[in-house]
Amino acid sequence: MTARQLFEQIKYKRSFLCVGLDTDINKIPPHLHEKDDAIFEFNKAIVDVTAPYTVAYKLNLAFYEVAGDNGWRALAKTVEYIRKNHLGMFIIADAKRGDIGNTSGMYAKTFFESFDFDSITLSPYMGEDTVKPFFEFENKWIILLALTSNPSAADFQFIEDKNGKRLFESVIEKSKQWGNEDNTMYVVGATQAEMLRDIRKIIPNHFLLIPGVGEQGGSLAKVCKYGMNRQCGLLVNSSRAIIYANKTTRFAGIVGEKAWEIQRQMEILLQAII
Amino acid sequence: MTARQLFEQIKYKRSFLCVGLDTDINKIPPHLHEKDDAIFEFNKAIVDVTAPYTVAYKLNLAFYEVAGDNGWRALAKTVEYIRKNHLGMFIIADAKRGDIGNTSGMYAKTFFESFDFDSITLSPYMGEDTVKPFFEFENKWIILLALTSNPSAADFQFIEDKNGKRLFESVIEKSKQWGNEDNTMYVVGATQAEMLRDIRKIIPNHFLLIPGVGEQGGSLAKVCKYGMNRQCGLLVNSSRAIIYANKTTRFAGIVGEKAWEIQRQMEILLQAII
Repeated sequence: MTARQLFEQIKYKRSFLCVGLDTDINKIPPHLHEKDDAIFEFNKAIVDVTAPYTVAYKLNLAFYEVAGDNGWRALAKTVEYIRKNHLGMFIIADAKRGDIGNTSGMYAKTFFESFDFDSITLSPYMGEDTVKPFFEFENKWIILLALTSNPSAADFQFIEDKNGKRLFESVIEKSKQWGNEDNTMYVVGATQAEMLRDIRKIIPNHFLLIPGVGEQGGSLAKVCKYGMNRQCGLLVNSSRAIIYANKTTRFAGIVGEKAWEIQRQMEILLQAII
Repeated sequence: MTARQLFEQIKYKRSFLCVGLDTDINKIPPHLHEKDDAIFEFNKAIVDVTAPYTVAYKLNLAFYEVAGDNGWRALAKTVEYIRKNHLGMFIIADAKRGDIGNTSGMYAKTFFESFDFDSITLSPYMGEDTVKPFFEFENKWIILLALTSNPSAADFQFIEDKNGKRLFESVIEKSKQWGNEDNTMYVVGATQAEMLRDIRKIIPNHFLLIPGVGEQGGSLAKVCKYGMNRQCGLLVNSSRAIIYANKTTRFAGIVGEKAWEIQRQMEILLQAII
């Protein structure tokens, strides 16, 4: 998928919502536990009701790895299900991998070939060697951690160099030369919305993946004020606030309404550009 | 395992070798392909012949993930096999994970409980939130990326702050306060051996995991000169140079000899402290 195609989807759906499938077997509606493949059944239900309001799904690998074999199977089935039943979805492996050379190549093969993800989140600490092997796969994306939404993001990401440039700015400045606007996005936490102004000076056109709206306290309006560009340039993720909105047998309808509610807010915010 | 227990193993084996089980199905001896579980069979053979010369095994997750279900099963079986048959081994999940809170907690559960690894490699980019959940597991270790052996390590790890402190030094200085010498190690590439002098000023006593000796060109003697402390303080990893030393049906013997050769060098270098 190209950036332009992603923007087409955003215009069509009037939404830049990414639903985070952080599926925890202990948090899903209890009646699903009777099913053979409860994780997948939950995901399938969530996807079917949220797809009209959503342009992307993000699957956090930790939640699937912790479930062992069952988890990996559910991961594979979920990606396949989205791919087959909801065309044009942008699917993110939230894996935060960060290795080099041969090893990075293997991760790329795993997530882009074995699983048919569109993109993977990566940590920049080891530099360009981490990223390069992923660019050998056409129409696939890396999403590099830049400025994260957690409290201890400040431990290192705000360290200033001799010229006052903060580490997250160095990461963005250097890495934007490795790829291009059709294969590189950045993670910027919604809790850092005002920093988006500085970030847009360095990368006016790149897409950003924004976690932290909702449960972590970030504001959608602020994110758009400082981060939206003419092609939207934003994927805003919401996980728990949507997928665990209800735990009864009627959860699916309520989850769908929750996604619809966010889509309507996004539709209004998109009026500035479409 | 405590740092003291690890040092006991090092004295007993007169070795601080860590064998990297970067098992690539395309690189193992062809005759093993006939076996049902070729990856595990290869690992088992390697472990049995190298164990007398080795105090640790490092399993690079990328190599197992790329093999799908089979890979995960082989990973589980290998850890179990080492645990049961070679007491006192320190087993490392080279996963380079780096997430936060709940998600970090899930990774900890996966690698320390579901698999019985002693330790996991982590990326420091997101700060303390990445590390904290792992410390809730007793006798388990995190191994934080500090200064890596790859060429593009310099992209960010050498960025100097206003006081001339390089990023890898900030990472070590700050993170050494999160844990202690019994639950925290650092990755320092052997290709950066002279930097070990600076690193030992900040953490004189911590264990370091050193990749990059052998195929990547790092020197064992230099690593010891600048990095060894009174409790050794080093685990030196070798992967390809050992495990792919031979690809015939007689590979095991030759792999064993290769590990023995390195152990003999280590024995001489250890004379300075034991």
